[in-house]
Amino acid sequence: MSAAVANVQFLSGVKIVDLTQFEAGPSCTEALAWLGADVVKIENPKMGDPGRRLRPGQPDNDPYYFHVFNANKRSMTVNLKSPKGLALVKDMIRQADVCIENFAPGAIERLGLGYDVARELNPAIIYAQIKGFGEGSPYEKNLAFDMIAQACGGTFSVTGEADGPPIRPGISLGDTGTGMTMAITILGALYKRRETGEGCRLQVAMQDAIMHYMRINFATQGRTGQVVGRAGSKVPGISNAPMGLYPCAPGGSNDYVYIMTSRANPDHWDRLLKVTGREELIGDPRYLTPQDRVDRQDEVDDIIASWTRTRTKHEAMRVVGEAGIPAGAVLDTMELQNDKTFEDRGIMQVMRHPVHSDFKMPGWPVRVNGKPPAIRSSPVLGEHTDAVLGEWLGLNAQAVEVLRAEGAV
Amino acid sequence: MSAAVANVQFLSGVKIVDLTQFEAGPSCTEALAWLGADVVKIENPKMGDPGRRLRPGQPDNDPYYFHVFNANKRSMTVNLKSPKGLALVKDMIRQADVCIENFAPGAIERLGLGYDVARELNPAIIYAQIKGFGEGSPYEKNLAFDMIAQACGGTFSVTGEADGPPIRPGISLGDTGTGMTMAITILGALYKRRETGEGCRLQVAMQDAIMHYMRINFATQGRTGQVVGRAGSKVPGISNAPMGLYPCAPGGSNDYVYIMTSRANPDHWDRLLKVTGREELIGDPRYLTPQDRVDRQDEVDDIIASWTRTRTKHEAMRVVGEAGIPAGAVLDTMELQNDKTFEDRGIMQVMRHPVHSDFKMPGWPVRVNGKPPAIRSSPVLGEHTDAVLGEWLGLNAQAVEVLRAEGAV
Repeated sequence: MSAAVANVQFLSGVKIVDLTQFEAGPSCTEALAWLGADVVKIENPKMGDPGRRLRPGQPDNDPYYFHVFNANKRSMTVNLKSPKGLALVKDMIRQADVCIENFAPGAIERLGLGYDVARELNPAIIYAQIKGFGEGSPYEKNLAFDMIAQACGGTFSVTGEADGPPIRPGISLGDTGTGMTMAITILGALYKRRETGEGCRLQVAMQDAIMHYMRINFATQGRTGQVVGRAGSKVPGISNAPMGLYPCAPGGSNDYVYIMTSRANPDHWDRLLKVTGREELIGDPRYLTPQDRVDRQDEVDDIIASWTRTRTKHEAMRVVGEAGIPAGAVLDTMELQNDKTFEDRGIMQVMRHPVHSDFKMPGWPVRVNGKPPAIRSSPVLGEHTDAVLGEWLGLNAQAVEVLRAEGAV
Repeated sequence: MSAAVANVQFLSGVKIVDLTQFEAGPSCTEALAWLGADVVKIENPKMGDPGRRLRPGQPDNDPYYFHVFNANKRSMTVNLKSPKGLALVKDMIRQADVCIENFAPGAIERLGLGYDVARELNPAIIYAQIKGFGEGSPYEKNLAFDMIAQACGGTFSVTGEADGPPIRPGISLGDTGTGMTMAITILGALYKRRETGEGCRLQVAMQDAIMHYMRINFATQGRTGQVVGRAGSKVPGISNAPMGLYPCAPGGSNDYVYIMTSRANPDHWDRLLKVTGREELIGDPRYLTPQDRVDRQDEVDDIIASWTRTRTKHEAMRVVGEAGIPAGAVLDTMELQNDKTFEDRGIMQVMRHPVHSDFKMPGWPVRVNGKPPAIRSSPVLGEHTDAVLGEWLGLNAQAVEVLRAEGAV
């Protein structure tokens, strides 16, 4: 464990039966795992979480997707179609604090592990479900993946050039964004349960969760009364200049710097003119007020761009940022991966895996007493079957062997 | 309170001194407020949270931004520059479970309310800080807004057309996305504290939090060894067809449907041919395997688009979705706002405010025992000063009047 990270045990002793797959569910339980919960992934013995193999028919040489959403968890294989396997999971639910699933609509009930069953087994269970669309929605039976939830939740409609088609935001907010709202609610329920001992049912839909992240667009619509459109690198519905991306040297596809002057702070414009060597324009009536600059936005953008084009994005960010004006270089995945300072600070960590190669990936971003939680490897399929059956259910090696011979685990 | 929502009290009794402003901090404390925490916003008596007035010089007729990030909180005005005002906040920190701030780097320490001070006052305090860049980052002293964090965290680099410039995702993930990671960590710390009684310091940077949401792109880079680019409506680094946006009637700027066939499920393609009336292509060797369809992606897209162009996005979503193929219409803010089913399900709720007009906005998306938490109005500036001073510190009306006369509150 690197000196930059710590063994965070906020949730030590919290037992989670994790029936999730792909990303929306696993991102939720991973957050809880980073904070010390005992998250046991229940996986089918044959293939496991389909997120382990996104390229069917190819050997399992593509573990990255699984790594990034399943760090710090344990894996137990169970055949849910076998009566003994199903009984094992029921026994685990009796011991658990949380049970969570994100199967297709209706599937968990067909497996015989729906909320009504779980509550009978354990009235204190916190039972969490993630679906694409909400109960009562016209689409409640539909399947969803991240991009479907983002389309139906509005993010495409506000992303793209003003005169271009909708664009997918390049992050899987429909999945991980949803997982975050469920993790928060599970933790609230766990906190309360320490007083009351009572369980509950929690449900979230990906489309609904996207609405949470879209709030600022609903605020803009409230103010303007108009549907919110697209604005390229700017913010739809907000008029401000200078604001946006400015091209930098040497002109590569990500050689841009974002510069944002505040309308509430007139100093920003004057300072920007100074650092870009255009002091003669300080006080120029053409660009005096925020409204003047919006009215002459193209001229303003040219003034800034003629300077940024002669600087790298890193230099532009440094110089403008040091002048107290918010500025940020557009960094790509390789630049972020290769930036040693993330590793030094524990934000990127190397996963050392018993089977696969070392892999550097983002960990949990919040520091606890100065250090983020330490990464542990994502589990090999079934790696912890014996250990979990022993620790959770008191089964010895012989009993596990019998279950294995019967095809239950 | 509508029958579709409930009074969720998971965090009842949890006292939060909220020194946050704009969005990254307020989105965190709002999540805790939805779940029942007593979140007291400390605001300066003159103007309050600058998020109350995003258009300086204009009257306060723009409350929407403030509404969406400050529902269910209370507001107390305190002049932090006055010794008596500062002493009041210190007294509140003594009573609090959580203290949270997102001022510019160094500002909270200059105010005399840094972590060292708070811990002296209350060793059990959970002290949370949100900044643009992390301690130890080359940019730790820089200011950041959402777009700066998104540029420096990588989201711009993976959003946009393949041959176009970087685009800003139209959601404020740098702010609210960060707030979610902090809310989770605060809740973990609160859970642990019920055992240990110990406080802690929590810190998150917006740039670092964005890395959490970028995980899937780092997974793609791990697999390909290449920097992740942009792919329009598709997913960068993933080859799949049909996948993406298809144009619908009547051809408006958001008249598109997202259709996603799974490479793991060959039935999707056959079913899609059936619903689009192209059964004659089922089994056609040109489009037989997932790789065949990727190789002839333009032809595949034309086949699908020639059908979608004759349907509205709603009809296309319904028909394709009912065939078991993930599909989603691109919905815009007005369509979402006007969709009554969100209100019926408590996902959108009407905020009734003592001063401003009714405003329908997204609430917390997770249902607890079938119902999402009920919305309460965002507070008027200083609305709860007297109540909080009474409840938290035992001050009577006369004592509050003295503080007010002295300019402390």
